[in-house]
Amino acid sequence: MASSPSDYKLSFGLWTVGWTARDQFGEASRPEFEPWEYLPKLKEAGASGVTFHDDDVAPFGTDEAAREKYFTRFKEVAEQVGLKIEMVTTNTFAHPVFKDGGLTSNDRSVRRFGLRKLLRNVDRAAEFGAETFVMWGGREGSEYDNAKDLNAAHERYAEGIDTVAAYIKEKGYSLRIGLEPKPNEPRGDIFLPTIGHALGLIAQLEHGDIVGLNPETGHEQMAGLNFTHGIAQALWAGKLFHIDLNGQRSIKYDQDLVYGHGDLTSAFFTIDLLVNGFPNGGPSYDGWLHFDYKPSRTDYIDGIWDSAKANVEMVTLLADKAKAYRADPEVQAAFEESGIFELAQPTLAEGESISDFLADKSAYEDFDPEAAAQRNFGFVKLNQLALKHLIS
Amino acid sequence: MASSPSDYKLSFGLWTVGWTARDQFGEASRPEFEPWEYLPKLKEAGASGVTFHDDDVAPFGTDEAAREKYFTRFKEVAEQVGLKIEMVTTNTFAHPVFKDGGLTSNDRSVRRFGLRKLLRNVDRAAEFGAETFVMWGGREGSEYDNAKDLNAAHERYAEGIDTVAAYIKEKGYSLRIGLEPKPNEPRGDIFLPTIGHALGLIAQLEHGDIVGLNPETGHEQMAGLNFTHGIAQALWAGKLFHIDLNGQRSIKYDQDLVYGHGDLTSAFFTIDLLVNGFPNGGPSYDGWLHFDYKPSRTDYIDGIWDSAKANVEMVTLLADKAKAYRADPEVQAAFEESGIFELAQPTLAEGESISDFLADKSAYEDFDPEAAAQRNFGFVKLNQLALKHLIS
Amino acid sequence: MASSPSDYKLSFGLWTVGWTARDQFGEASRPEFEPWEYLPKLKEAGASGVTFHDDDVAPFGTDEAAREKYFTRFKEVAEQVGLKIEMVTTNTFAHPVFKDGGLTSNDRSVRRFGLRKLLRNVDRAAEFGAETFVMWGGREGSEYDNAKDLNAAHERYAEGIDTVAAYIKEKGYSLRIGLEPKPNEPRGDIFLPTIGHALGLIAQLEHGDIVGLNPETGHEQMAGLNFTHGIAQALWAGKLFHIDLNGQRSIKYDQDLVYGHGDLTSAFFTIDLLVNGFPNGGPSYDGWLHFDYKPSRTDYIDGIWDSAKANVEMVTLLADKAKAYRADPEVQAAFEESGIFELAQPTLAEGESISDFLADKSAYEDFDPEAAAQRNFGFVKLNQLALKHLIS
Amino acid sequence: MASSPSDYKLSFGLWTVGWTARDQFGEASRPEFEPWEYLPKLKEAGASGVTFHDDDVAPFGTDEAAREKYFTRFKEVAEQVGLKIEMVTTNTFAHPVFKDGGLTSNDRSVRRFGLRKLLRNVDRAAEFGAETFVMWGGREGSEYDNAKDLNAAHERYAEGIDTVAAYIKEKGYSLRIGLEPKPNEPRGDIFLPTIGHALGLIAQLEHGDIVGLNPETGHEQMAGLNFTHGIAQALWAGKLFHIDLNGQRSIKYDQDLVYGHGDLTSAFFTIDLLVNGFPNGGPSYDGWLHFDYKPSRTDYIDGIWDSAKANVEMVTLLADKAKAYRADPEVQAAFEESGIFELAQPTLAEGESISDFLADKSAYEDFDPEAAAQRNFGFVKLNQLALKHLIS
Repeated sequence: MASSPSDYKLSFGLWTVGWTARDQFGEASRPEFEPWEYLPKLKEAGASGVTFHDDDVAPFGTDEAAREKYFTRFKEVAEQVGLKIEMVTTNTFAHPVFKDGGLTSNDRSVRRFGLRKLLRNVDRAAEFGAETFVMWGGREGSEYDNAKDLNAAHERYAEGIDTVAAYIKEKGYSLRIGLEPKPNEPRGDIFLPTIGHALGLIAQLEHGDIVGLNPETGHEQMAGLNFTHGIAQALWAGKLFHIDLNGQRSIKYDQDLVYGHGDLTSAFFTIDLLVNGFPNGGPSYDGWLHFDYKPSRTDYIDGIWDSAKANVEMVTLLADKAKAYRADPEVQAAFEESGIFELAQPTLAEGESISDFLADKSAYEDFDPEAAAQRNFGFVKLNQLALKHLIS
Repeated sequence: MASSPSDYKLSFGLWTVGWTARDQFGEASRPEFEPWEYLPKLKEAGASGVTFHDDDVAPFGTDEAAREKYFTRFKEVAEQVGLKIEMVTTNTFAHPVFKDGGLTSNDRSVRRFGLRKLLRNVDRAAEFGAETFVMWGGREGSEYDNAKDLNAAHERYAEGIDTVAAYIKEKGYSLRIGLEPKPNEPRGDIFLPTIGHALGLIAQLEHGDIVGLNPETGHEQMAGLNFTHGIAQALWAGKLFHIDLNGQRSIKYDQDLVYGHGDLTSAFFTIDLLVNGFPNGGPSYDGWLHFDYKPSRTDYIDGIWDSAKANVEMVTLLADKAKAYRADPEVQAAFEESGIFELAQPTLAEGESISDFLADKSAYEDFDPEAAAQRNFGFVKLNQLALKHLIS
Repeated sequence: MASSPSDYKLSFGLWTVGWTARDQFGEASRPEFEPWEYLPKLKEAGASGVTFHDDDVAPFGTDEAAREKYFTRFKEVAEQVGLKIEMVTTNTFAHPVFKDGGLTSNDRSVRRFGLRKLLRNVDRAAEFGAETFVMWGGREGSEYDNAKDLNAAHERYAEGIDTVAAYIKEKGYSLRIGLEPKPNEPRGDIFLPTIGHALGLIAQLEHGDIVGLNPETGHEQMAGLNFTHGIAQALWAGKLFHIDLNGQRSIKYDQDLVYGHGDLTSAFFTIDLLVNGFPNGGPSYDGWLHFDYKPSRTDYIDGIWDSAKANVEMVTLLADKAKAYRADPEVQAAFEESGIFELAQPTLAEGESISDFLADKSAYEDFDPEAAAQRNFGFVKLNQLALKHLIS
Repeated sequence: MASSPSDYKLSFGLWTVGWTARDQFGEASRPEFEPWEYLPKLKEAGASGVTFHDDDVAPFGTDEAAREKYFTRFKEVAEQVGLKIEMVTTNTFAHPVFKDGGLTSNDRSVRRFGLRKLLRNVDRAAEFGAETFVMWGGREGSEYDNAKDLNAAHERYAEGIDTVAAYIKEKGYSLRIGLEPKPNEPRGDIFLPTIGHALGLIAQLEHGDIVGLNPETGHEQMAGLNFTHGIAQALWAGKLFHIDLNGQRSIKYDQDLVYGHGDLTSAFFTIDLLVNGFPNGGPSYDGWLHFDYKPSRTDYIDGIWDSAKANVEMVTLLADKAKAYRADPEVQAAFEESGIFELAQPTLAEGESISDFLADKSAYEDFDPEAAAQRNFGFVKLNQLALKHLIS
């Protein structure tokens, strides 16, 4: 039976449907609405959650009184409509004061301003009941290799994240931080360019226990990396806190297409992992599936909602196909043949010491590599089975 | 005064000058020599160290007696010539038994064989006085996302590395492990695709204290990543154990060009970091500069040595230029103007608590972002200064 | 009703199933069979045609007598089995004599040798009844920008192709030449890197009338280009003479995956174009669908035939889906809404002169760009419709 | 002796220094000045020419009277300052009416509007004495493969260009059209993605004789292509009409860095070709060196002029180095050894017919490929010589 959007925790960034389609080479092609005006239609499109940057709801520089009105109204409408504010994130990239970064700007006064903007938004996130506080450092980076002391930059980045995390703990908020890697654009090279680099940084933090990842499909693909491999490593490390789904076609500028409108096969295997887990069990993801995409600039207002619905429809379609794929006995037999289950067995036997292992002649001295090399792993057959499930 | 090769610790992989230029689309264009025959010329080219894969010295499958003769002879000649065997690495990728990996093959018997091959080579590395044991898992990965249980794959990879590390500790060897990331080729997607992913994995290891990185210039650039940023993050994390220098031109197959014959500007800034350290001090690298390149297939035997010398010459030339660049008062003034030194200042003042910080109105409430946004960081001027040092 | 392989002209390169899986980093993982031994199984997999490089059938350097035996036997078996030899191509890349190219080597004696090898193979192609003579200049190129006089290189390339074409005409053969572009690998930069560059060169030839393209899916995608756009331009120019289908995942080394196992969505739209033609009619393709892929190195002999069949199955499945997609009234309505048919109307009216056009105030002076900008092209809806046809 | 900017024909696009640094992710970081206010400083930076889009001088929608004032004032100041308006180009990409293209929009009324805007700007270009009329079709393309009838799109693109060319001829203007290829951004896939595709299209035009190329360094590099190879093919085809110089670091979004601040080695070889021509002579370029770059968003007003000067300085420095490189007898000897001059010799001798060639046993039957394969082309040595000239 086909699944429905309500079977999944689906959310949208307010800035996605709210994008007026002004880009690097052109003016806006769509009008702007009030933040809360998007909410009923998001609900209708199948979302049960919504997220925002502070400045999406109350523009940068809004005075305090007006600011509170914006947020109050937004929260009220979200509640009326039935959308959970599951994640909140902070804009430390659009205003020119952040042109060299928010946490790693060479200008210390900017770093202090950026950090304060973040802390203030932590309060908002907590107040609104968000579970995740995403940090995308889009301006943290450089175009020229000498524009930064690269050690100091990592020190400052870690200091900033640790301060946010410490503040969350001090206040007793239940928020967790999700770092969002991206290799480049708008900076020539962004710090924490991939899931891996973020995992590496988290390992150096004082408060790394509440810091994890919010990987975005297209961002990893902009570095030519396999997104499903990336989130699998994050899951393995216990750090997949949130996820951004969208579409990207090959290595180029950040396209932010509808989910599945980029690399469809990769999207299928991502959803398979998120919905079905690893074949041998292990850590699994039960967080939100968050769409961070842009409606095409060639579409007008109808296209906003066509594209929002297309995201939702893609996830439900792919999830249904992924479930049928895993349930297919032929697939399970192919898993067996390909050694998918065998990989779950530790290489050393239970209780086998290194000395024992070195003494096992069958492992090396008597092992026949020529014979073993003839194993037909059957990967192409297994992949073809998956693709037939996908397209049938 | 110009520096000389002996001012640096320069080493070559035996497989570099020894490459007979058989590639994916063609047959060898150069003859093969005995392993030790390359050593005098490497010394002459400016090297003071040499490295090898086990199978570079004694081919896979060589019987034990012949094997010992190969290694003995190789060691003797290296000593005669005056080349230190500073690093040893293991070939777990060329023989078809490793076609699905050495530590993450779906076939457990292959994993056991691969691990034993590694442990055996650890003994050799220790015997030969190597400091670093590099592990490049070129076949650990997949072409299809369903060919692996990705959690189990990371479990097995970690198990394998931890076993090697545990063995080093058990034996009391002074070796450290250097993981070598690569995004793809020969596998469609290789596990531990970048410096970051390797740092992330190391953080999960039991014996991660003796496991670090051996990043290769071209491998990071194959993912479009900034190599100098990458090694800086590894240095910051205390994990830059060894380094592979070579050249790559944009995102494509693994080119393994002479160092500096790829992205020259990036090479300059890498050498600047390795030779001069970070502008504000911090962790620095004092290990080997190891060339992992391939002489062009269009060149014959003369070209092997022309290219070996070109690598050495590039490093000395770039090092001299990097030193002059840092010593230039105009550069130091531009560093000041660009805020390079300012980035070393913590964002929070010494002893400043988060409460103090929140109470500082100058940081946020009274801060004028419009005025601050007008700072001219002068990055383009600073980069032009660097490039003029490079090309003058 | 599902289509069958015999509804299409499907062919395989002998070197595809015949690849023993020796790659840049490893030894062969499969045995080699006699050339004709592959033929019955190719037929069984659904092929009705086969193609080869001269050296695939008779190895480079085989003496003339043995050579004729090889070719005779191959042709006999192909006829028995019922496989048409529809295309023949020449290996001017594997032997080290061609290390700097076959037609653009800096060594004139090599160019003469390469050209003679080509002419000899033209005779073979004609004798065997091939329709197309593919020329892939994999070694024509450079790693360093000064390794070639780039004007002379284009002169020599054109001279070589024109000589082959002139010979075909002199002999009265019905062959046409198909140039196969590739951006890089095995050379750092290959001449005629894309479909476009080949079209540009053909325009300069004396005998360009019988010279067209043999574009390969993965080769264009290695430059991040849209394959369907590329073959459309070739069709528009009357130059799509042959086509190589395979799979590639993003910009990296040449993967040669099974068709559809790379960018599946792109494969769908390619097959849609090849099977259904352009929405408004125009030039169409009625040539062979030729698979130029490699069975995965992780698979053994069974995997050769699993992968061969997967290629065939993909084309038939995608073709059926593409037909249903075009036949769907909802799709046709979306085409209409998106202006797909409107694009076929010339911008100037029939008989409208430039003066007339300048005098039409409705086109400019009275045109309201703000109103026109609000058109909702509905591209995302149309794409979602296509993807639903693909995956349903 | 060092060359000076006045030794070259250097020009800047008004939109380069005039970029206020609003990007995809952020607001402007610099103020806007009146168009003519940039001119004196451009002259001071070393330019002798300036170029513009129609809308750079008079914003889209400006009424006719104001529009004439803008243009008149701009021209007056350019003349006073001594800057030649050498090229004019048309903005058919920024206004949302062009969101699906100017010449290939699915909306015919938009195509008519776009074409009229182009024709109007042809008159301006002629009036202002420009030599080249550049056409960059940044919005001609698609994100989804079914958003266009790809045959009709090429028909319309050709119709549009041919109409502009026909108009130029009708009016007797001495303008030539320069097409500017780009692979993607702002569209997912842009038509005429590379130099090659533009050459291919020109070959199909009715008025192709006055249509050539305006290639941009970074645009070709965004497809991983070798820019120097590309302009060499354009030169060979007699179609290098204009050139855009800037910097790009690997395959990513369009960076528009200062010339030489991207791939420095490639920049050296490009300038070598432009200044010194091909080693064996042939077509050469005597047009403008036009900078199409963006001052970094992190810099304020000073950075505009630092970066403008850096472009100029780079060209003069690289030109001087390129001249010294060619004049070096050691380089000429290495050219000889590498066969650079030998490539200029036709493969067939003068007057040699194909029959003669087939009868020459020394070319094939008696040729020893094994011996010939041992030639040491010395390419790495030659490249090292070039790099030493570059960095010494």
